[in-house]
Amino acid sequence: MVYAIISPVAEHKHGDLPKPDDVTATVLLSCDDAIGIIATVTGFVNAHGANVSSSETHQDQEQGKFFQRIEFGLDRFDLDREMIQPLLEWEIGDHFSVRSSIAFSDQEQRVGVLASKPAHCLHDLLSRWRLGELPGRPVCIISNHPDHTAEAEYNGLPYHHLPVTRETRSEQEERMIGILEEARVDLVVLARYMQILTPRFLECFPNRVINIHHSFLPAFPGGSPYRQAYLRGVKVVGATAHYATAELDQGPIIEQDVTRVSHRDSVTTLVRRGRDLERVVLARAVQAHLEHRVLVVDNRAIVFG
Amino acid sequence: MVYAIISPVAEHKHGDLPKPDDVTATVLLSCDDAIGIIATVTGFVNAHGANVSSSETHQDQEQGKFFQRIEFGLDRFDLDREMIQPLLEWEIGDHFSVRSSIAFSDQEQRVGVLASKPAHCLHDLLSRWRLGELPGRPVCIISNHPDHTAEAEYNGLPYHHLPVTRETRSEQEERMIGILEEARVDLVVLARYMQILTPRFLECFPNRVINIHHSFLPAFPGGSPYRQAYLRGVKVVGATAHYATAELDQGPIIEQDVTRVSHRDSVTTLVRRGRDLERVVLARAVQAHLEHRVLVVDNRAIVFG
Amino acid sequence: MVYAIISPVAEHKHGDLPKPDDVTATVLLSCDDAIGIIATVTGFVNAHGANVSSSETHQDQEQGKFFQRIEFGLDRFDLDREMIQPLLEWEIGDHFSVRSSIAFSDQEQRVGVLASKPAHCLHDLLSRWRLGELPGRPVCIISNHPDHTAEAEYNGLPYHHLPVTRETRSEQEERMIGILEEARVDLVVLARYMQILTPRFLECFPNRVINIHHSFLPAFPGGSPYRQAYLRGVKVVGATAHYATAELDQGPIIEQDVTRVSHRDSVTTLVRRGRDLERVVLARAVQAHLEHRVLVVDNRAIVFG
Amino acid sequence: MVYAIISPVAEHKHGDLPKPDDVTATVLLSCDDAIGIIATVTGFVNAHGANVSSSETHQDQEQGKFFQRIEFGLDRFDLDREMIQPLLEWEIGDHFSVRSSIAFSDQEQRVGVLASKPAHCLHDLLSRWRLGELPGRPVCIISNHPDHTAEAEYNGLPYHHLPVTRETRSEQEERMIGILEEARVDLVVLARYMQILTPRFLECFPNRVINIHHSFLPAFPGGSPYRQAYLRGVKVVGATAHYATAELDQGPIIEQDVTRVSHRDSVTTLVRRGRDLERVVLARAVQAHLEHRVLVVDNRAIVFG
Repeated sequence: MVYAIISPVAEHKHGDLPKPDDVTATVLLSCDDAIGIIATVTGFVNAHGANVSSSETHQDQEQGKFFQRIEFGLDRFDLDREMIQPLLEWEIGDHFSVRSSIAFSDQEQRVGVLASKPAHCLHDLLSRWRLGELPGRPVCIISNHPDHTAEAEYNGLPYHHLPVTRETRSEQEERMIGILEEARVDLVVLARYMQILTPRFLECFPNRVINIHHSFLPAFPGGSPYRQAYLRGVKVVGATAHYATAELDQGPIIEQDVTRVSHRDSVTTLVRRGRDLERVVLARAVQAHLEHRVLVVDNRAIVFG
Repeated sequence: MVYAIISPVAEHKHGDLPKPDDVTATVLLSCDDAIGIIATVTGFVNAHGANVSSSETHQDQEQGKFFQRIEFGLDRFDLDREMIQPLLEWEIGDHFSVRSSIAFSDQEQRVGVLASKPAHCLHDLLSRWRLGELPGRPVCIISNHPDHTAEAEYNGLPYHHLPVTRETRSEQEERMIGILEEARVDLVVLARYMQILTPRFLECFPNRVINIHHSFLPAFPGGSPYRQAYLRGVKVVGATAHYATAELDQGPIIEQDVTRVSHRDSVTTLVRRGRDLERVVLARAVQAHLEHRVLVVDNRAIVFG
Repeated sequence: MVYAIISPVAEHKHGDLPKPDDVTATVLLSCDDAIGIIATVTGFVNAHGANVSSSETHQDQEQGKFFQRIEFGLDRFDLDREMIQPLLEWEIGDHFSVRSSIAFSDQEQRVGVLASKPAHCLHDLLSRWRLGELPGRPVCIISNHPDHTAEAEYNGLPYHHLPVTRETRSEQEERMIGILEEARVDLVVLARYMQILTPRFLECFPNRVINIHHSFLPAFPGGSPYRQAYLRGVKVVGATAHYATAELDQGPIIEQDVTRVSHRDSVTTLVRRGRDLERVVLARAVQAHLEHRVLVVDNRAIVFG
Repeated sequence: MVYAIISPVAEHKHGDLPKPDDVTATVLLSCDDAIGIIATVTGFVNAHGANVSSSETHQDQEQGKFFQRIEFGLDRFDLDREMIQPLLEWEIGDHFSVRSSIAFSDQEQRVGVLASKPAHCLHDLLSRWRLGELPGRPVCIISNHPDHTAEAEYNGLPYHHLPVTRETRSEQEERMIGILEEARVDLVVLARYMQILTPRFLECFPNRVINIHHSFLPAFPGGSPYRQAYLRGVKVVGATAHYATAELDQGPIIEQDVTRVSHRDSVTTLVRRGRDLERVVLARAVQAHLEHRVLVVDNRAIVFG
């Protein structure tokens, strides 16, 4: 069921793409650390005519690994886009176990959003896209509840209401996968989607499904974290945005934040305080991903600044 | 110009009022501190049959002042509503300089929202009302720009576009006052309303106009606080919600919060980080006011927990 | 082995006791919630001539429980000290399951400090006592290492070096119990004491042993929490002060705090950042306990403001 | 008056210097931004045989400026120490307005500490040096009060008690300058030194005097900031570490932190909360400076991570 396509909102700002002269490429790479890596990478980019607009490196001395995010303008660049990544990897050399990815700022990223009943994260993300605060472009909303129909319509987005029971889970997931693939999504955001997703679903979008969990993981994984926090009598509660993996609430953490609470907080007020964390933690994680600032290594997320 | 009245949103939750048996009264009072004040107030409430659902006191030893917020159920209370406040003040005694106010949970509070171009606070507040997160009920939106017409319509609210120039300021303010009074608003929220309001306007709504300023006051009052913060090289930026008074950015502070920044932040990223603070700081202040938790004394706001 | 008794520090400020006219009593009480409890307690105190200098109440609506901390001056009080608690409990009435404790500000509280090799929390606490920042009075330091001899001597405190191995644990604990009981300690502070204490030890000082754990519990209990945090890739680390109970790291939490970290942090820098949290979190918890602001109920700590 | 020289503390850890093979050089540089700068700098270092152990760059796009901190090992480096900086600047080219500084990890940094009566920051810094938490080495303590004699003696440091009145200010400053120059200090730390220093003093140690101010500047400069904060009714208080300059409390900010407060806080409790901020903010700033992570440009401090 697709509900709404035409938005009543006058000026959608999400998806504003750069002018040709302002297009940049962003490379994320990891390799074994070695003398000269930084000079090699930046030298390569300079040699082909680009100016580096942003470069950040990280050396994990314990593991002997090197990581870099480098962003550079393409207007005077003398290589074809598809040649950048292979030539750069060749330049660094195979024996350093290079792994890299590249993105271009004029390639619009398409986002599918899943939500169950709680709507605060969904509202917040959609508002940010309407305001032009977030890069990328939402392309569909899927929910196991009908509640967000008007919100989807207001934002000019198709709304897919796919109810689910224990018996229909795999069938419902297949339909979700179909919708998301047809919509050619680059990222799936679980904006308080309260159903557990199967490995089959997650394998379709590796490191491309971001979930918001309503506790500071690894504390209080699983259900009812605010009730768990109340019973344990903690003095801080938190929220965690992470890539969803087959192990529930164990994926790489992108962003966390916490707030102080006290014995005065009931489960109800913990939930209310938590919602403000969930909104902003999820938004920051989605933004970091869409700005190509996140590199996943060994179940840990490197989030460049 | 009133634009929209009928909301496409199915279930507006704001303004859900309590059932008759659950109605509570909330008294805020300040007086000179003296032996027995707490027992007098709570004894009075108990003697008339009410159970106290919440009581918080504060003693300012330096100034010899006593403050209390007390909330109690009315279902078995044996006094008429209009008698509670005068009898309680009489019980405490004139010579203690008592000042009090009372509110009842079944009296809907009506809120008028003013906004200029930036819409993030407006979106956030309206989303919270749609979700039932905030008490009270928005009743109109006024702006010196036409930008939020669709947002108002989506939320089922009348939208008043009142452009303003230096020459028309006082005339425009009179129109705003007229609209707000006709809408019988109990609170005016300046959700990034970028025009300076005159004393005449503020006197119409004493301690009932909440503004959000985009810095941690008293640092960086006035215009362009994020640029000021950038030039000063601060390592934290903040936001402040306060009651607007005749002196610009000098009113009683209700809520503040801050976030760490670094030399890496440009004015642009400071603005972006600040918007997340502005949203949540304003929402918390509006909530505190609408829950009758704020008492203003000598330009300082006591915010009960 | 007792090392040093005479302090080279000129003016020890810890343990400065109030003048007779300024002595206050502090009552902590919990009971079933009921109409009139607040008025009963404050009325009792007023009726016997005391002025309330501070009162804070908490109602746990979910559990139907009432909690209060009330502090009042004794200079015009007409009851003997030992009669206050029984008469107050009698006033409230047995059927409300009252439990209470009372403390007087002229009764010096004696603190025993245990520490292993890491000395940052020990240094910090001793500095605070020298500066008069903390109430109470340290009376001895016990360690399974000889490292802190000079620090104890400088602070004018006896130092007990009690090495321990798996085989000698119970014998060493008995000696510690003997020393602490002989020193008549009211509180035992584990200032990074890295040995697990047996139930036998803890039963000697129920709810009177405060431990600092170097993570935001319940995340990362047990050993090497910073390594665990590094491997999990969390974006915040924390510290937790709690009452030690027979279950390791499961006791009532008194205070917690956290700080943001990133992929740039190695285990070494996490440890360094964490030390600043450990210092201040432990100091705040010790202060709250010594100011009679902590009430333990069902493994949760109510910490009055 | 020099009081103590021999420390009773067994093992002073501050000043532990690296083994010859582990010596590193750290270059801080600023220049106009241009294509190829990063590759030039890292290429230069690599070409002479060094491995980069840490590199961080920052581009201020608004001002067209480039900043870098680069740290590299010297064991296989083929240039004499004194040649590194001039050759590197020559390599980059004059026309880019290069400014740089260099430091070597086997050059011990000597620190003079000034303090008035409040001792919490002094205690904290000295404890950190005893524990080996801070680099550098304290070499003397100067105070206008005699209070810290025992503390200096315990830490094995000379203590200079130099009382000051309005009439003797310039004379006292000359004596301080003499002591600090004779002690060959690289850094002067004002650990709550409550006297205003003259431009003459500050010119002797440009960008080498760190002060801790007990508010989040630019809010509440000058005297009694906690009283100012109380009167203004702020909901956060803070502390600021900055380089002292001729304009009081206007120097480049190195580090700031804040904590939430409420109407319950009196001036006394604000002071107490603030002390915990002052300790840690000053310690972090001193550490950043001593690790050569701070670059001052146009009254703003760039603090590398």
